[in-house]
Amino acid sequence: MPSDRFEADYLLETPIDVGRAADIIAGEQSSGTFVAVPGETPELKERSAARVVALEVIEEGVPGRSLPTNRGARPDERVTRARLTLSWPLSTTGPSLPNLAATVAGNLFELKCVSGLKLLDLRLPGAFAAAYPGPRFGIEGTRRMSGVHGRPLIGTIIKPSVGLGPEATAALVHELCEAGIDFIKDDELQSDGPDCPFDARVAAVMRVIETYADRTGRKPMFAFNLTGDLDQMRRRHDTLLAHGATCLMASLNSVGLVGMIELARFAELPIHAHRNGWGYLARHPLLGWSYVAWQKLWRLAGADHMHVNGLDNKFSETDESVIASARTCLTPMFPEKPCTVMPVFSSGQTARQVHGTYDALQSTDLIMTAGGGILAHPDGPAAGVRSLREAWEAAIAGIPLDAHARTCPELARALEVAA
Amino acid sequence: MPSDRFEADYLLETPIDVGRAADIIAGEQSSGTFVAVPGETPELKERSAARVVALEVIEEGVPGRSLPTNRGARPDERVTRARLTLSWPLSTTGPSLPNLAATVAGNLFELKCVSGLKLLDLRLPGAFAAAYPGPRFGIEGTRRMSGVHGRPLIGTIIKPSVGLGPEATAALVHELCEAGIDFIKDDELQSDGPDCPFDARVAAVMRVIETYADRTGRKPMFAFNLTGDLDQMRRRHDTLLAHGATCLMASLNSVGLVGMIELARFAELPIHAHRNGWGYLARHPLLGWSYVAWQKLWRLAGADHMHVNGLDNKFSETDESVIASARTCLTPMFPEKPCTVMPVFSSGQTARQVHGTYDALQSTDLIMTAGGGILAHPDGPAAGVRSLREAWEAAIAGIPLDAHARTCPELARALEVAA
Repeated sequence: MPSDRFEADYLLETPIDVGRAADIIAGEQSSGTFVAVPGETPELKERSAARVVALEVIEEGVPGRSLPTNRGARPDERVTRARLTLSWPLSTTGPSLPNLAATVAGNLFELKCVSGLKLLDLRLPGAFAAAYPGPRFGIEGTRRMSGVHGRPLIGTIIKPSVGLGPEATAALVHELCEAGIDFIKDDELQSDGPDCPFDARVAAVMRVIETYADRTGRKPMFAFNLTGDLDQMRRRHDTLLAHGATCLMASLNSVGLVGMIELARFAELPIHAHRNGWGYLARHPLLGWSYVAWQKLWRLAGADHMHVNGLDNKFSETDESVIASARTCLTPMFPEKPCTVMPVFSSGQTARQVHGTYDALQSTDLIMTAGGGILAHPDGPAAGVRSLREAWEAAIAGIPLDAHARTCPELARALEVAA
Repeated sequence: MPSDRFEADYLLETPIDVGRAADIIAGEQSSGTFVAVPGETPELKERSAARVVALEVIEEGVPGRSLPTNRGARPDERVTRARLTLSWPLSTTGPSLPNLAATVAGNLFELKCVSGLKLLDLRLPGAFAAAYPGPRFGIEGTRRMSGVHGRPLIGTIIKPSVGLGPEATAALVHELCEAGIDFIKDDELQSDGPDCPFDARVAAVMRVIETYADRTGRKPMFAFNLTGDLDQMRRRHDTLLAHGATCLMASLNSVGLVGMIELARFAELPIHAHRNGWGYLARHPLLGWSYVAWQKLWRLAGADHMHVNGLDNKFSETDESVIASARTCLTPMFPEKPCTVMPVFSSGQTARQVHGTYDALQSTDLIMTAGGGILAHPDGPAAGVRSLREAWEAAIAGIPLDAHARTCPELARALEVAA
């Protein structure tokens, strides 16, 4: 790919000739009209138009459309599925993430000739690496600030998600610190509501964490959800700094791209990026965004931790998809700026998922958060944390889970409950 | 609805018992775990949990799931579709748009028990009206600044979308001004790239518009696309003010909610909000956002003009959907703060769509933009603009289109071409 262009790959489904559909999409996302207008010369088109770089038919004669259109489809209609690559000149947009998004994920999904379209991947030239900061902390900074090395950060989520006030939250954090937790996060539903105001929560929680850190030398990382309007996020960020907090959390789809870029510019703490709402972007196999494409925007913008769901999760995502997401977080984006981030595994995680996660990922550069898996361990949270650490020790050492459980009672009990 | 709660309506499809599915969704979006944890008392649940306010089955025994899940569906499986209303206490989130989004459109779309989920509508208490500005200009401000009263603003888009430099753009704007246009917008692909830098484009275009305005007393509104990072948008906004521009444009899905809220706080010009990317949020009938729910966020945030597509458009949306979107833009949100905005009709619009639009909407408070319909009129842009104005005169006066065309040659020619 030339350094003055960017590329996007799509999974396309169309009821019309696939080459014609590719041309329509490329036209819509550059010259932008089906009617030739004065001023649209061949030279101008050649310079500015989006190009169809590759088009490979995957399936032909598939009965029925994946997505409806407002023209009635014929009952016997067949559609074609193909992998399409388009490229655009950087000279139209410049290295701008918001304008990249409008180009690769703009009006094309709505076209009549499209009965399915998923953005699979993006390839960006080095100009984007120069224009955006990428993660300021990433994997190394997260390990340095949490003091956890050689294994994943074992984390949990404040549960119940909503309803606990600042002092009740701090009491739970105290219990989790004593249990040996590495990482705790707010729920994405909890930012700064009247029932649990941000400032009071930070003050109460950090008092507990600092006391624990003074005594033990270990300072668990708490990701405080500061999601809000920009001025609110700035103020909450300053509150975090003032209280010695070591992580902040923001909901990507609520804050949006420009808000996240701005947050990353002023944030002096690792950004734990929550993907809630991801389902509306990705749940249909032939509509919207792939995680592989989507996460590149947020990594460049400055996210340090990216949620990827977890194996055997309570949601609808397959394990293959979860692992592909985690791998892509650990894959460098640019030689000069890898932008690698810590994938965050969550959703129904227990010791049971550890071996599968490690086998597939072959890395310990991740955060594994377990809610019920820790807080609902029959012998308490300390046993819950211990069961997860033991499972990771076994996975890293190549010891089967059940064999290791025979010498680790907390792990054995965790496996009984999660069976 | 009590003033201390907010509500969301969904179209839900589920393969399990629909009441159970509703409870799971409500739980996920409040207490948030399926495992009872210490601290989760009945009193706390009663106060903080999301409530199922209404659940009405629409269809039962529907064969097959609309969206896949990672558990294999049985071949003979039947699903249920229902209309679900949930409510949440404001005491968890406060009146915060980003946290509202994480609550009503967070992790729920991904749940295993959900084989389809569309957010249909939102009802917000007055606290939101107090917390956010809403449109600063809206319909009245747009009419005041454009000088157009008693009929829609007739607009167009710079075509070709990309490739014209500042001077070529200004030359086209000159032609459009002379043609009698009310409104011109940048393409959403064009913000501040090297081929057509923002500052140079604004300077060249506003020179033309100011000259035209000095001569005629009419100042067509040009919506300059300033989509970019926050500091870029601030700087571009100041450039607009310095050159006497009267409108700015931003891509909602590229900028995101927090960026738009911030933009609206500093913007001293009407905000023309472009919805490109809308397809990935809405194209599937059983996934994502309805326009009715979605546009409420942006209106509160401060958008003044909202894109709604157009009748008989080149995209896949039905006319019914387009009209429902336009109507909702004109429907007050709060008694004390209506937040009504100008719907923007676009996509393949010509004189042919005018009567249908007026008949359905019974309002002239809208912007109708036509690209080819104006620039590709066989007798030139002035005839294109005139044909649209004539069609609107006829529609407002109750004269059939073809009858009016007999006395209006530009309209007659436009109808020939668009036939």
